[in-house]
Amino acid sequence: MTLGAIEAGGTKFVCATGNEQGDVFDRVSIPTTTPAETMAAVDDYFTTHPVDAIGIGSFGPIGVNPDTPKYGYITTTPKPGWGDFNFLGHLQAKFDMPLYWTTDVNEAAYGEAEMGIAKDVPNSIYMTIGTGVGAGVIANNRIFNGRTHTELGHMRINRLPGDDFKSACPYHDICLEGLAAGPAVGQRTGKAGKDVAADDPVWAIVADYIAQACVNLTVSFAPDKIILNGGVMKQKQLFPLIHEKFQSYLNGYEEVPPLAEYIVPAGLGDNSGVVGGLLLAKLALTEA
Amino acid sequence: MTLGAIEAGGTKFVCATGNEQGDVFDRVSIPTTTPAETMAAVDDYFTTHPVDAIGIGSFGPIGVNPDTPKYGYITTTPKPGWGDFNFLGHLQAKFDMPLYWTTDVNEAAYGEAEMGIAKDVPNSIYMTIGTGVGAGVIANNRIFNGRTHTELGHMRINRLPGDDFKSACPYHDICLEGLAAGPAVGQRTGKAGKDVAADDPVWAIVADYIAQACVNLTVSFAPDKIILNGGVMKQKQLFPLIHEKFQSYLNGYEEVPPLAEYIVPAGLGDNSGVVGGLLLAKLALTEA
Ligand SMILES: Nc1ncnc2c1ncn2[C@@H]1O[C@H](COP(=O)(O)OP(=O)(O)O)[C@@H](O)[C@H]1O
Ligand SMILES: Nc1ncnc2c1ncn2[C@@H]1O[C@H](COP(=O)(O)OP(=O)(O)O)[C@@H](O)[C@H]1O
Ligand SMILES: [Zn+2]
Ligand SMILES: [Zn+2]
Repeated sequence: MTLGAIEAGGTKFVCATGNEQGDVFDRVSIPTTTPAETMAAVDDYFTTHPVDAIGIGSFGPIGVNPDTPKYGYITTTPKPGWGDFNFLGHLQAKFDMPLYWTTDVNEAAYGEAEMGIAKDVPNSIYMTIGTGVGAGVIANNRIFNGRTHTELGHMRINRLPGDDFKSACPYHDICLEGLAAGPAVGQRTGKAGKDVAADDPVWAIVADYIAQACVNLTVSFAPDKIILNGGVMKQKQLFPLIHEKFQSYLNGYEEVPPLAEYIVPAGLGDNSGVVGGLLLAKLALTEA
Repeated sequence: MTLGAIEAGGTKFVCATGNEQGDVFDRVSIPTTTPAETMAAVDDYFTTHPVDAIGIGSFGPIGVNPDTPKYGYITTTPKPGWGDFNFLGHLQAKFDMPLYWTTDVNEAAYGEAEMGIAKDVPNSIYMTIGTGVGAGVIANNRIFNGRTHTELGHMRINRLPGDDFKSACPYHDICLEGLAAGPAVGQRTGKAGKDVAADDPVWAIVADYIAQACVNLTVSFAPDKIILNGGVMKQKQLFPLIHEKFQSYLNGYEEVPPLAEYIVPAGLGDNSGVVGGLLLAKLALTEA
């Protein structure tokens, strides 16, 4: 059996083939231009690389609730051409096989939960802190959705005294994404995140806000692990700072796993999404 | 078939019998004194009122994870005698029948989700704002648990400018329970909540903090409904204030149901817990 994965990002799509163990046989990267152009390349890929099922994780927001008319769509993205695009419908028309449709972060979360750093625990949260903040929640080994997918990047956090940085989120004066994602780091320092020194004071602010978010995730979802990934988390010095602040904010209210095993980097690195896609394809086949 | 329910609170236990439709046949209230005394009365009740299964919702924190040694226990409560009490084990030894064990708020959440205000939707959150803040999450018609139950009362929220009230939570300088539950209202005003005038300025503060919590619940769990209950929510004027603040904090970031149907009072009033218990007993029987 050969499985397929699509990791559909705002900059590039990755299409891959592999097996039920999450081994990747082949992969290709396709620039995200117009739906017509990008999807033609996706269709080509899976025509020349036949598979039995495809797991799809897409940038969004997307419709993930099968009871709503926009299920399978990318909904309100500002990305030209992609708003109101029936992504799943397009694939269903071309490929008569089980398809699993979810968000890019849920796909990565599932990869980490099944084969990555959270493979031994049933409950985990995967949060990527990059251009935006996205998160996928795995509860009892399954992707968690409510009425729609989570939007955890827009959780409210508390500004540190004296932090009067204007939020980079157009909606919220106070939210994790607006105060601590890549663009906020860029605007706070005047440099790209990767060029900011490891001991720059901005990282203490970023770590504090991420730690606050981790406290909220803890009291909300009670995960076994919180996995932090994305461009900003390439700054590995953030982990100990986050652990320290998390400890002080939670303040012993409830027992959590040892922090070095609780708030952790991804185990599959940049492969979380593709591996997740393959395993979601397997899930779609099993449940078909 | 006769079903049983226990709503085990820190002040009183309610034991009841009823049917699968959530109709209550009989109920009794037992003061929460020592485990020996209170549990003897519970045992008596279900000996004289025989049932086929019992749904139990208990004050806590409790062990809800079957993979842990403290499953079925009340764990770290300061309530004398009840810490480390094996509640479920006690009942299992007396009653050879299916038992469903969860928190008091999950039990009430389940009652509301099945027979109350959320009966037509699969995803809801029940939050009680009383002596403390407790919440139960229903996702896809089931009680949500992670590694343990949620502790949503300790979610961090943002203090309003000028609000330097010392948090009533011994753990957190900033959390919903510490700043907005009944004891905080009492300390802020010098009066019992029920004696504070409906137009007292304290309610604007309380409503703001509850609205912030509702924003976090929205971006976290994407429920179909958020149900607010408990002593503090007897102040019905809080609802419109919460709706207004919620709207301004979410700021159109994502679509939510009309607020008057989204953030709502409980449909079963003080019966949520008992009805939930009966229906959890039914669930335990079905799955036994
Ligand atoms: N080494 C780094 N240190 C800090 N920030 C980084 C680093 N690399 C990338 N970033 C920032 O992360 C963001 C990109 O995040 P990334 O997760 O790579 O992609 P995206 O979120 O767009 O999918 C940018 O804002 C970038 O400045
Ligand atoms: N009508 C009311 N208005 C405001 N606060 C109230 C009212 N009734 C009770 N309270 C407050 O709610 C708290 C009790 O909450 P309740 O939900 O009744 O019980 P508990 O949380 O202890 O189970 C107390 O702090 C009390 O002062
Ligand atoms: Zn935001
Ligand atoms: Zn607290």
